[in-house]
Amino acid sequence: MLIECIPNVSEGRRTEIVAAMAAALRGIPGVRLLDHSSDPSHNRSVFTMAGDATGIERAVLALFERAVADIDLRGHSGEHPRLGAVDVVPFVPIEGVTMADCVALARKVGAEVAARFQIPVYLYEEASANPARKNLEDIRRGEFEGLAKKMATAGWTPDFGPATPHPSAGAAVIGARMPLIAYNINLATDRLDVAKKIAAAIRHSSGGYRFVKAMGITLEDRGIVQVSMNLTNFEKTPIFRVFETVKREAARYGVAILESEIVGLVPAAALMSTAEFYLQIEGFKPAQVLENKLRTEN
Amino acid sequence: MLIECIPNVSEGRRTEIVAAMAAALRGIPGVRLLDHSSDPSHNRSVFTMAGDATGIERAVLALFERAVADIDLRGHSGEHPRLGAVDVVPFVPIEGVTMADCVALARKVGAEVAARFQIPVYLYEEASANPARKNLEDIRRGEFEGLAKKMATAGWTPDFGPATPHPSAGAAVIGARMPLIAYNINLATDRLDVAKKIAAAIRHSSGGYRFVKAMGITLEDRGIVQVSMNLTNFEKTPIFRVFETVKREAARYGVAILESEIVGLVPAAALMSTAEFYLQIEGFKPAQVLENKLRTEN
Repeated sequence: MLIECIPNVSEGRRTEIVAAMAAALRGIPGVRLLDHSSDPSHNRSVFTMAGDATGIERAVLALFERAVADIDLRGHSGEHPRLGAVDVVPFVPIEGVTMADCVALARKVGAEVAARFQIPVYLYEEASANPARKNLEDIRRGEFEGLAKKMATAGWTPDFGPATPHPSAGAAVIGARMPLIAYNINLATDRLDVAKKIAAAIRHSSGGYRFVKAMGITLEDRGIVQVSMNLTNFEKTPIFRVFETVKREAARYGVAILESEIVGLVPAAALMSTAEFYLQIEGFKPAQVLENKLRTEN
Repeated sequence: MLIECIPNVSEGRRTEIVAAMAAALRGIPGVRLLDHSSDPSHNRSVFTMAGDATGIERAVLALFERAVADIDLRGHSGEHPRLGAVDVVPFVPIEGVTMADCVALARKVGAEVAARFQIPVYLYEEASANPARKNLEDIRRGEFEGLAKKMATAGWTPDFGPATPHPSAGAAVIGARMPLIAYNINLATDRLDVAKKIAAAIRHSSGGYRFVKAMGITLEDRGIVQVSMNLTNFEKTPIFRVFETVKREAARYGVAILESEIVGLVPAAALMSTAEFYLQIEGFKPAQVLENKLRTEN
């Protein structure tokens, strides 16, 4: 049984805080911390872990314990929108688990986080029963600063927990979804409007690809801009198609792609099909990859 | 201990012959037949297997047994140059084996093939002690038809076996080398001169990349031409660089790349670095591939 869990927390600058969180996660039996990365511009960190349901549940609670103690959103600023100290917690079925299992886990953990830490919890994606509260962006809109007002309006009672924000930790969004690729493309320009226009062009919400979420942001420390994306179904909207579109759109403004970046983990298949696309490989089978062959039985 | 062995045989049309060879290889304990593919234009098949030294040795001898019985080069024609019924047998160190181990195995198997089947054997690549007889192309030049004459000249006494060709099976080239990628690029044209010029441009021998062997051939059944290559060090001369060069050279003649093809197995790293190149991914680590992470210990 293998569930992947990729909590995003609103701390990307104080490395000792992030290190303490990583250490807490590593201490949980049945769970492996596969990766973690921090972005000082975003002021956000992403942890990637995998394990069984029991271990993952314990790990998420341990993470909330640290985050509630160490992160105070009232003093927080960063390029990435955020609603909570622990901002979002997705569960992803990897092996021997169904999406229904992950939805059930999201609801269980959501209820427990709310009870233990007095944090309002919203269920999202596959764990949400309400289409208006399915998409992370819809739930997060208004961010931490607008949360109290939002929670006072109709339709925004949380799925679990108090009817008002946690004063320092905000709210948390917990759910279940398919694997996504967190993919950023950095443009060789400081023109934020270019990044924002391109993000609008490629994301589903404003007319772009079905399985792309995107936003344009500034990387202050580098003097450049970034199209920051989530590819929510890399099989149907592949990474190379998104790259090529961003490249062409940037050329419209005389802007080149400087580099791109994969945040956290990426399924091998996404990179394989990228190589297949650019090399125009006909009839390629994953079984042709030496390491795959060596691992499978004859 | 894992040795990879990729024998190439001069039969790519009679599927029952090839199937019998595959069956013989599958029957050897300690050996796994990872892949086999046949090319009717080349009239050649490639088997990819992996195992321990003892199993691999038995498998190669079993293959020669079938090939000597079923392939008569006196009636053989095909696009790919060939010297023997079993044309070339490389041993490749994969895990827990050194190149020296593979060289020793090549010599042992070479001697045994010569003795058992009365086939002249030439050692090549790392197993060869003679620079004039290190490169497969140099040994194979003249092919089966020119072999008797070549063997009568100075410097072409085989490393093992009789001083004259086997009447129907020719000679065999056996050796040890690093992993290579057998990579073909099909051009959208029937102009063989274009394929030959491009092959000459990219292969090391005529001024091209250090770790590329290439030839231009016709695919009669499809009415197109192909640049057929071996990439002998995909880390130093990567597949994407070769692709891009072929593409640019073909454009000189108004010719497009139709498709490409990987024959047999390819190391995952070659495809990963291809994706990294085209997506301009900065700071990418193989550990970011989900499947890699799940397989390694924390």
